[in-house]
This record gives sequence, C-alpha cells and structure tokens, in this order.
Amino acid sequence: MDLITTRTLSKAFIEDILQKAQGYEKAARAKKNLTVLKGKTLATLFFEPSTRTQMSFQAAMLRLGGNFVGFSDPKSTSASKGETLADTIRVVEGYAHAIVMRHAVEGAPARAAELTDLPVINAGDGSNQHPSQALLDLFTLQQEKGKIDGLTVLLAGDLKYGRTVHSLMYALSHYDVDIQLFSPPSLKMPESIVNDVKERVSVKEVTDFGDADVVYATRVQRERFADAEEYQRSLYTIDEAMLSKIKSDAIILHPLPRVKEIAPEVDLDSRAKYFQQSFYGVPTRMAILETLIGASND
Amino acid sequence: MDLITTRTLSKAFIEDILQKAQGYEKAARAKKNLTVLKGKTLATLFFEPSTRTQMSFQAAMLRLGGNFVGFSDPKSTSASKGETLADTIRVVEGYAHAIVMRHAVEGAPARAAELTDLPVINAGDGSNQHPSQALLDLFTLQQEKGKIDGLTVLLAGDLKYGRTVHSLMYALSHYDVDIQLFSPPSLKMPESIVNDVKERVSVKEVTDFGDADVVYATRVQRERFADAEEYQRSLYTIDEAMLSKIKSDAIILHPLPRVKEIAPEVDLDSRAKYFQQSFYGVPTRMAILETLIGASND
Amino acid sequence: MDLITTRTLSKAFIEDILQKAQGYEKAARAKKNLTVLKGKTLATLFFEPSTRTQMSFQAAMLRLGGNFVGFSDPKSTSASKGETLADTIRVVEGYAHAIVMRHAVEGAPARAAELTDLPVINAGDGSNQHPSQALLDLFTLQQEKGKIDGLTVLLAGDLKYGRTVHSLMYALSHYDVDIQLFSPPSLKMPESIVNDVKERVSVKEVTDFGDADVVYATRVQRERFADAEEYQRSLYTIDEAMLSKIKSDAIILHPLPRVKEIAPEVDLDSRAKYFQQSFYGVPTRMAILETLIGASND
Repeated sequence: MDLITTRTLSKAFIEDILQKAQGYEKAARAKKNLTVLKGKTLATLFFEPSTRTQMSFQAAMLRLGGNFVGFSDPKSTSASKGETLADTIRVVEGYAHAIVMRHAVEGAPARAAELTDLPVINAGDGSNQHPSQALLDLFTLQQEKGKIDGLTVLLAGDLKYGRTVHSLMYALSHYDVDIQLFSPPSLKMPESIVNDVKERVSVKEVTDFGDADVVYATRVQRERFADAEEYQRSLYTIDEAMLSKIKSDAIILHPLPRVKEIAPEVDLDSRAKYFQQSFYGVPTRMAILETLIGASND
Repeated sequence: MDLITTRTLSKAFIEDILQKAQGYEKAARAKKNLTVLKGKTLATLFFEPSTRTQMSFQAAMLRLGGNFVGFSDPKSTSASKGETLADTIRVVEGYAHAIVMRHAVEGAPARAAELTDLPVINAGDGSNQHPSQALLDLFTLQQEKGKIDGLTVLLAGDLKYGRTVHSLMYALSHYDVDIQLFSPPSLKMPESIVNDVKERVSVKEVTDFGDADVVYATRVQRERFADAEEYQRSLYTIDEAMLSKIKSDAIILHPLPRVKEIAPEVDLDSRAKYFQQSFYGVPTRMAILETLIGASND
Repeated sequence: MDLITTRTLSKAFIEDILQKAQGYEKAARAKKNLTVLKGKTLATLFFEPSTRTQMSFQAAMLRLGGNFVGFSDPKSTSASKGETLADTIRVVEGYAHAIVMRHAVEGAPARAAELTDLPVINAGDGSNQHPSQALLDLFTLQQEKGKIDGLTVLLAGDLKYGRTVHSLMYALSHYDVDIQLFSPPSLKMPESIVNDVKERVSVKEVTDFGDADVVYATRVQRERFADAEEYQRSLYTIDEAMLSKIKSDAIILHPLPRVKEIAPEVDLDSRAKYFQQSFYGVPTRMAILETLIGASND
C-alpha cells in the first residue's frame, strides 16, 4: 500500500489513520519509544530539502522503534550523476521497508510506487500533493475542534500551487464541511480540483475570514509572480487587526514554514494552533508508517 | 584489518567474505536486524557524495544491529576549513569502531589506514579502487551464475578511470576466469593492472560481447574527453539490438549509477541482474563489517 | 536547564560535569553503549556546518543509548525558505528531548532557549560562546595534568573572535589559575571578558610560551584581516623550534580544526594532547546530555 495522493483515499482509510493517530498521541507527546516497528528501516529520500517533514517522519519512525537511512540534499545523490529516479528506487528497495520521498517533479512518487513493492509515501511532489500533511491537518481539526463534520474551513494563500491545500481539499471532501477559498485572482484553486470535490462538499470563494471555524493559511511565494506589484497586492497577513475579524472559537493553522502570512504577535493568541498542528505530524505519521509498513510483506 | 585495495587480498579472505555474505543473504533479503554488531558504530566519511554506497553500508550496519555517524557533503565538513585528512581521521577515531570513506584523492583511504588502528574501508578513492564493490560483484557471480571459476567476464566502458573495474580485475584474478576488455582506445585498462594479473588469468581485448558469460558495463563519462566527437564515438549502449548478440545465459551487471550504457528496455530482460547486484551489496558489506569490526580490538 | 554560555555557570555545575565525565570516560574509551538515555532523541540543528562537534554529540548520544535527528546544512532547511529561528525551534520541540544548535548569529541559542522548555545546548554561536568545548577543555586539563588549580594556561591565536577561548576564560575563572594571552594586536581578547574574570583570576598578556603549563592554540583566520601583510605578521606556528621553548611537562591543546598553527611534526611530541582533547569531547558531552536531559521533564 502507498500514500501518494488524497484524491483516491477512502474514508475508511482516513478514519483508520485518525483513530490510530489518536492512539499514538500520548506516546508522541511523552516522546516514548514503542516497539511497533522495531527492526524496520525507513528510507527518507528528499530530492528537495525539507527540515520539518523529514525530521517529523524520522521522529515518528524512532517513536515506533524503527530507524532510517536516507539523504536530504539532491547534490549529494547519484541523481546528480544523471541517474534516473527509477534506478534510485530499485536500488533503495534493497535497503529499507518503506520509502518516504519528496521530489520537485509532480508524479515522481506515483512513478516510484509503480516501480517497487515497498510502500511509498509522497512527502510532497511539486505543486501536486502532500497527503500526510492533509491527514495531520484532519487530525488537528479532530483534536482541536473535537470534530470535523460541521466545520467551515477556509483555505487562504496560494491555492494554485500549494500542494498542502490540494491534498486537504480531497481529504476534507469526505466530511460534511463547508470549504471557503481565499486567494489572489492569479492563485486560485485549480478548477479541476474544485470540480472533483464539489459534489460532496460545498466550495465557495470568500473575501473575508468571518465565517470560518478553521483558517488554514499558506505561503504566497514571490517567485509565482512575474510582476512585483501584483505580488505585493496578493500578500495577506493575519495580524492583530485581522484577528478581531476571525471567530473567537476559530483555530488558525498553517503547514509551515510561514513567512509573512501570520504575524508573530498572533502566536500569543489562543486560536493560533499551527505549532500544535506541527506536533500532530508525529502521531499521524506514526499511524501512517504503522499502517503501511505493517501491511507490507517485508 | 583494513579493506583498501583488492590488489593485495588473499583468496582465503575473499572466500571467507563470500561465505559469510551467503550466510547473511537471507537476513538481508528479509531485512531482519541481527545483533552481531550491537552497540558498534560505523563512521561514514563521504568526502565525495554517494547515495547508494553510503546507504548500502548504513543498511548493512543496521542489519547487523549497529549504528552510524558521519557526513556526506564535503562542504559541511571541517575539511572546508582547511583541515587535513590526517586530523579528521584522528578525531573521528574517538567516535566509532570502523571508518568507511570515499575520497576524490587516490590513496587517501590508504593514508587514513596508516593513521588509525580502526578498520578503514575504502569506498572509492578517485580512479583507483573500490574493493567492497568488487567483493559484491564476485558474490553476484556466485549467486547468479552459481560459480566464478570457468566464467568469461567482459568488462566494458571506461576501463582507464573506472575504479570498480580496477578492483574487479584483481579480485577475479584469484579465479579460473577469462577476462575480456571492451573499451574505447583512449579508455583502455591500465597496462600496469593487466601486467599484475596476467600471470594468473587470461586477459584479452575484444570488440563484441558474444563470448561473455558476464557483461560488466560501466559509465563512460563526458569529462574524460577533450573532444566531443571522440566522446560520442566512445559511447556504447546495451539495447534490444545488442541483447541478441549476448549469450542467452549471460548476466548483465553494472555498478550503477548508469546513464546511457544500458537502455531501460534491458531491465525487462531476464539477463539484467544489476539491481540484484545492488542488493547483494548489503549481505556482502555485512560480511565485510563483521569481519573487520569483529577482528578489531575495539 | 540549558547550556548557553560559560559566563553564568556555577562552579558546582562545572565540577559535577567533570565528575560525571570521569565516570563516562571508560565507556567512551571502550566505545560501549550504555542505556542512560535509552529512548531519548537529540535534535542536532547545525545552521553552520561542523564535522567534529556534530559527530561528537551524536557519538555521545549513541554511547548513552539514545538517538538523534537533525540537519547539518543550512541550505537544506526551511530557514532557506525564510523561516524564523523561532518557528524552527517550536517545530523541532515536538520531535526531540533536547536541542544542540550551532548558528552564525551570536545569541541565537539563547533566544532558542527562551522559546522552548527543552534543554538547549549552544554548540557555537558566531564569535560568542562554545560552552561544551570549554567543559571538555577543563576535563582535558584534569585528565592530562591531574588538576586544574595551580596551572598557568596560555591562550594563543585569535582571542577576539574565538568563541572557544571566550568560553574557556569564564570556565577557567572558577579555578586558581594564571591566564596568559598571546595574540596579534588586532585580535586581542575583548576587554569586557578580561574585566569579567580578572577579579577571580590573574590575566596578563605575554610574548612567549615559556611559563605555560598549558598552551591552548587557536586558528588565526585570513578573513579577519583587511590587510594581507598584517595577516602574515599575525600568524604563528608551534613547530620543532618553538617546542624547545615550551616547558617539558606542558601540554599543547587546540580545539581543532587546525590549519597552520601547529606543525604536523608536533603531533609526535608527547606534549601534543589535542587529539586526546578531541576524544574527551565524548565523555564530557555524555555528562552534559545526561545532566540536561535527565533533569528535563520530558
């Protein structure tokens, strides 16, 4: 079994992960190491660098009693000698029980999954998907709002290229939620994704955060804009002033790293839950690793 | 004990490694972690980057129950502050039970071995040697052809600068094999190596793959040629057409990474054994690590 | 509890570390893994690269039965996406039981310590401090000279920007020592540090090494000088000739990496103890990690 995209996940799979994550939350918080995956090895192949996702998977693997090998710098890999992804995967296959990979090219993890019987986890492929992030986002809703059904979830920022919000759209579509989209005109959520989910959930564009139970902020990156002025106009910042226009019982999330989307003073507000969200990555990834590696034949 | 070059290895040592590798093959395939080197630490000093060799040694160490520390990026080391190799080795000596090192400079691992009582394993020094690769190559012959004696082994590609074929020449010379050399005129096997082994094995240059039981392909690198045209003329590709001219029971090997020497369609041919070969790196390196670390006083 | 600077350390803390380091020395020398920190995870955040310090902490953690996650290349971190140090710390907090960090900016580890309840160890911040180095330096004096009180300790080289000597000044000030300073005029020990310690220890500038029981050499870096000639004049080298002017029972130390401050021939002199000193980093850091992680609530 692989975890490549949230688009094709069943609700049963999602619910199973959330329930297991709940079970691991205590061990993750206490930083206790279990023995569930004792003797198992995770290969962490980060063709694009990442602090938090790589360390989060490594920490999850350690908590389960396993270990890891891998790389985090594309220049220090055989890929820099012209090796194909296919060859890298078939070689790494001999070293580990599962592969977590991040790659700049959309579809690279899906291709990897075709090539190996090992479980492959997509830790971000270009602007496409980042499914373990979406699962930890759902787990955050469950833990911090007590439920997912009934929530109004607003996605803000770069909805066109943001892989985390793409994954989250599909993951949310299994629940009874209202999705609100807030983005600059040039960075709207792709029509194809909206079409995929709109039969199951309501999706609408909004211009303020007033109705949201969950404000999910993402980065707006300078390099997405040819025009500096348009970039400036597209920036938004959740700050003291904007906080007053957000529901008092809402929660504010961000997949991190943030740059200017959330002002530092917001960290002190009780609605700011993005560091909690980051922590929930550990139990959620424990659940994912246990499910995928436990289910594999290796 | 160190593993610096295959030139001075005894047949008894080689046979011992092959036999131990055979014993570890099952654990490596099942990815089971043993306790042979529990509590032992391997230092992996990659002054030149490498995905597969570093991960292969790390995986071998994990399978034996050990662990590792190290680096894989020359820019992130004290070497970039002007530190000598000698100082690096004498410092690392305090941290680990054995050292695996790759270095751009020929002879650097030999120098390291002089400086420390710890076992030092050469994981590639410039165009010189890569002995653990040669041992896993022999292990591949044994596993995939059932024997080494009696085989005709063809080495193709860059035989002048290719450290894997240099190591393999000496390793093969302990067996009753015929060695065939296939290379562009400017990239011939060094005369000195041919002279060293020709008393023990037959070595001849060939222009086709028709007699080989083992086709061992290696990369031809653009940077070895001053002239672009000569480079183009020197390229060879094992593809569908060439497969028909290779014995039906031959095996095709490559130390990897490959670039264009073996076309992707060859992967589907039953003679293609380079991914199996890569896997055999794990049990072979388990045998090497057990032998060297077990024999050390630490 | 954190270890950010030696300036505020109590003598009781220092003595406790030295005593524990003494207790761990045997295990470190035998490279035996204990179970003191079994199941604990150290985050090694090296925003500036370092071979020896990072590997020394990793080895110390392994000896105590723990493990580690982390990074060693600033370009492979979220920091390169514009993330603040504060966010990195708050995220990593969820993954580990303690944080070791090196950073180019003075005060960054102190700031990190304010942000998290986890123990934070400063592994070097700009030209400011490197406290675990100072503690292992004291341990080296104790082991190699049998005592600290009564020694004349000469600090040579770049005393202005050298964080190791800054940390060592404060650490030494708890003992009955004479401190001698030997440096080019433009790289003198900062007046503020001399003032801080001079009530407790004698500090004087010297022009030769003749009275020293301990010669502590440090690098003079080219980039500290606008003028090439002044740089050349500021270089010093402990070589065969200079050895004859150093006490026969003195010891010569260096935090390493060295460049030209100590000639290679000095390595053969029995007074050269810098590789021993490097090794003492393991038991000293075992003592530090046990003290800080054992004392934390996690």
